[in-house]
Amino acid sequence: MRDLKPYRDELSPVSFVERAGTVHASRPAVVDGAATYTWVEFRARSRRFASALRAAGLNKGDRVACVALNSEVLLLAHFGVPQAGGVLVAINTRLLPEEVAYIISHSGSRIVFHSPDLISALALVPPGVRRIQIGPEFEAFLDTGSEDPVESWLESEDELCAIDYTSGTTGRPKGVMYHHRGAFLNSLAMVVENRLTVASSHLWTLPMFHCNGWSHTWAVAAAGSKSVCVPRIDPAEIWRLLATEAITHFNAAPTVLILLANDPAAHRLERRVRVCTGGAPPSPTLIAQMASFNIDLVHLYGLTETYGPLTINVAPSDFDTWPESRQAEYRARQGFPHLVTGPVRVVDEQMRDVVPDGVSLGEVVSRGNTLMRGYYLEPETTEKAFSGGWFHTGDVGVMHPDGSIELRDRKKDIVISGGENISTIEIEQAVASHPAVMEAAVIAIPDDKWGEVPKAFVALKPGAVASEQDIIEHVRGLLAHFKAPKSVAFGELPKTSTGKIQKFLLRDREWADRLRRIN
Amino acid sequence: MRDLKPYRDELSPVSFVERAGTVHASRPAVVDGAATYTWVEFRARSRRFASALRAAGLNKGDRVACVALNSEVLLLAHFGVPQAGGVLVAINTRLLPEEVAYIISHSGSRIVFHSPDLISALALVPPGVRRIQIGPEFEAFLDTGSEDPVESWLESEDELCAIDYTSGTTGRPKGVMYHHRGAFLNSLAMVVENRLTVASSHLWTLPMFHCNGWSHTWAVAAAGSKSVCVPRIDPAEIWRLLATEAITHFNAAPTVLILLANDPAAHRLERRVRVCTGGAPPSPTLIAQMASFNIDLVHLYGLTETYGPLTINVAPSDFDTWPESRQAEYRARQGFPHLVTGPVRVVDEQMRDVVPDGVSLGEVVSRGNTLMRGYYLEPETTEKAFSGGWFHTGDVGVMHPDGSIELRDRKKDIVISGGENISTIEIEQAVASHPAVMEAAVIAIPDDKWGEVPKAFVALKPGAVASEQDIIEHVRGLLAHFKAPKSVAFGELPKTSTGKIQKFLLRDREWADRLRRIN
Repeated sequence: MRDLKPYRDELSPVSFVERAGTVHASRPAVVDGAATYTWVEFRARSRRFASALRAAGLNKGDRVACVALNSEVLLLAHFGVPQAGGVLVAINTRLLPEEVAYIISHSGSRIVFHSPDLISALALVPPGVRRIQIGPEFEAFLDTGSEDPVESWLESEDELCAIDYTSGTTGRPKGVMYHHRGAFLNSLAMVVENRLTVASSHLWTLPMFHCNGWSHTWAVAAAGSKSVCVPRIDPAEIWRLLATEAITHFNAAPTVLILLANDPAAHRLERRVRVCTGGAPPSPTLIAQMASFNIDLVHLYGLTETYGPLTINVAPSDFDTWPESRQAEYRARQGFPHLVTGPVRVVDEQMRDVVPDGVSLGEVVSRGNTLMRGYYLEPETTEKAFSGGWFHTGDVGVMHPDGSIELRDRKKDIVISGGENISTIEIEQAVASHPAVMEAAVIAIPDDKWGEVPKAFVALKPGAVASEQDIIEHVRGLLAHFKAPKSVAFGELPKTSTGKIQKFLLRDREWADRLRRIN
Repeated sequence: MRDLKPYRDELSPVSFVERAGTVHASRPAVVDGAATYTWVEFRARSRRFASALRAAGLNKGDRVACVALNSEVLLLAHFGVPQAGGVLVAINTRLLPEEVAYIISHSGSRIVFHSPDLISALALVPPGVRRIQIGPEFEAFLDTGSEDPVESWLESEDELCAIDYTSGTTGRPKGVMYHHRGAFLNSLAMVVENRLTVASSHLWTLPMFHCNGWSHTWAVAAAGSKSVCVPRIDPAEIWRLLATEAITHFNAAPTVLILLANDPAAHRLERRVRVCTGGAPPSPTLIAQMASFNIDLVHLYGLTETYGPLTINVAPSDFDTWPESRQAEYRARQGFPHLVTGPVRVVDEQMRDVVPDGVSLGEVVSRGNTLMRGYYLEPETTEKAFSGGWFHTGDVGVMHPDGSIELRDRKKDIVISGGENISTIEIEQAVASHPAVMEAAVIAIPDDKWGEVPKAFVALKPGAVASEQDIIEHVRGLLAHFKAPKSVAFGELPKTSTGKIQKFLLRDREWADRLRRIN
């Protein structure tokens, strides 16, 4: 037994579900289709999940994968897996079998829980990995566990509770390591910043696999709020649930909000709903539309490496008296560090703060308790990301005189489309694997619906022939569909004298009429 | 320079004011009489306070005393002192000069900040202790500091940020040590449990020296809420401020609420106000009265050793459908562990959990991040309080089947009167020092206004004469007035065969018609 100080407990988000099972016992925890679980039921299932995993041979620190749509089971995994002493790997459900197999292999997961609809995503997972399908098979698995309290194996709050894979700039997904302390603290920040209470009903429009639902998977248990699961974005169904489930909160990228705004079922809601959005700044049009539906929009910014939300746009005290255009400009800012994160700076190449004038450009860097521990099994990439003792976001922005930040461009070669990060290099490799292609460059271009979409610039081999559709179809066969270029331009690529492709010239052309190089 | 991990910052409540000075810059932080300070001004003053303390010779870990009524300066000290690297000792303003001098000496404070009205409380403080009076003298002191950010000396979040002296059961006050981590976490719990936001206005009816205002001194900065200072309980003035300052929150012992309810200015408030109460369970009458004023009462329980609030009474989901009498009974419970504290148990002498049947009695014990580090300079008392690895509250209660606790009696020999802890032994010693007294026993008896008051049982020396009033006046000359017995009974004291006074027999008689032995 370890030496216990009476005034010290290791922080862990598992404590939230243990407490909610007592304090909020009879209140609804999760609604998933026709099923509803109270907090005492949900806690019992979490303990069963944890003890069943141990009975199945889980050792401390073992990774446990999920390929699951938003569901009670995926929420449950956020408690049951770390409660068992395991590390949750919640995988993006839009990935192709190759990508899913890579993540399962790289993380060393020996068990994967999956939605029935996603069985094809597991096609390339090695046979040694145990698969458990959500439904009767999962319930039978739970039956092998016990509802008794689970003895904690946690020795330090710095131990991992989750690994979230993100599109890297080097092509292969990187595993972002979250620890119990960071997850606990970021969840509390979300409860406070998003004003979650026991009276809140949270609609799960944001995938839970996205930075663990921006820490809301754990935050809802801290607050005792009700979760309502949405497996897939279906605007009409979302409008229905907003009313029938008395929803007070949901989170979504602007792309999803645009879908909602343009759905025939769109209407002004009876009760005010608070919606956090991120992945791209909300446009003035979107803000106005949401206000007309009685939706308060909160603009957050962050990365997988920052447990999701890092900054929040907070209105100054006299905001209501400002002209509308100035309000809209202000709300596009990424804002201030949230309640428990560390400082956020904008720095030049020598790590000196840029002048906080809203004009001088620099890279956004941060440090603090809600930053990843590093990339799993990638010490060199980790060291580079943390160079100078600060995490380098790869995002380029300005510091305003009031201390808020605003993004303008991106150092990283990625496209952020509908809230998903896509590596341009990964797409370039897929495009280049087409037999007719000599070389390819991919950049993000602005798109009204998706924020950004990838565009490919292709030089064909002498005498070879390929159409735009050929290239797109080829990539869709190799990568998740959302990663395929939306358009392809053919011709010689601009290069330096040493032969390096000048992607900045392509970007200059495509973004010529824009203030920012991100959308 | 220490080795900094990019994903690790030491938790400290100082971070709240640093952030509020940026994020909530132009919003009001504190209203103190005619003066109002915004968060950017308050942060500047906090930094000035910290750097002025360092310029005045403060070394890391030095104690800094305050004998101050609720005021902007006392709130400021909660940030400026730990920001400097010092440890705040906020002293109960109702204590007599002997008691204040003892605490200043015991804590080793070499500087004391005091309200102009409380100069007489410092009469016995040694001349070597520097005194700075709040007002022009304090402002001149601030002018010796700088508004620049203050370099943190904090190496570990386990370092002390405050020592709060509490009435001990052994007569002399004990210094309860708070660390930065506990203060940070308990403050976040208060933000969440009490639903403080940037739109909240918090009225300071609770003395800030009481467990640092139940951690609300720091919580208001975390939330960006406005503080309105009340130097002394004046019911008419409180009713006025509730309206003029658009108050949304205040905290008070039931005694203060009874005063408010019986004031001619009492009226139904336009906006709902959330009031946390503790120190004694609220009576059904009080709950109903508060509801009639549009005040929501939240019942908290805790001790100085638990940073104030340890448990919170949370209503079950179907509470509104219960009959009123059952509701009132439920609301008298001390409730469940709050969001960030550790487990709370009710145990027998062998540290076994009692049966959770709402009947079986045991001692309430707890452990976790929001428990004191120990008693300052009292390792033996600390060890005893933490025996078995759990903090022993000295409170006797039951565990209900739903996991909530309810107090029934007290192992500690103290009286809790108007929210203040009073050591019966301290009073006994004062009573016994009267020349006519042979021996004395003091117990708590129930009182409608104060919850409990001390009653003395006195055996006089053979042939000696003293009246009830003589005894009371004698004690008032030695101790703070609220500690003096409210009544005195004369006669032989019940004793065991070995001569030990049987206080339980006195208690049995005085509490004969009561369900509980606390009020």
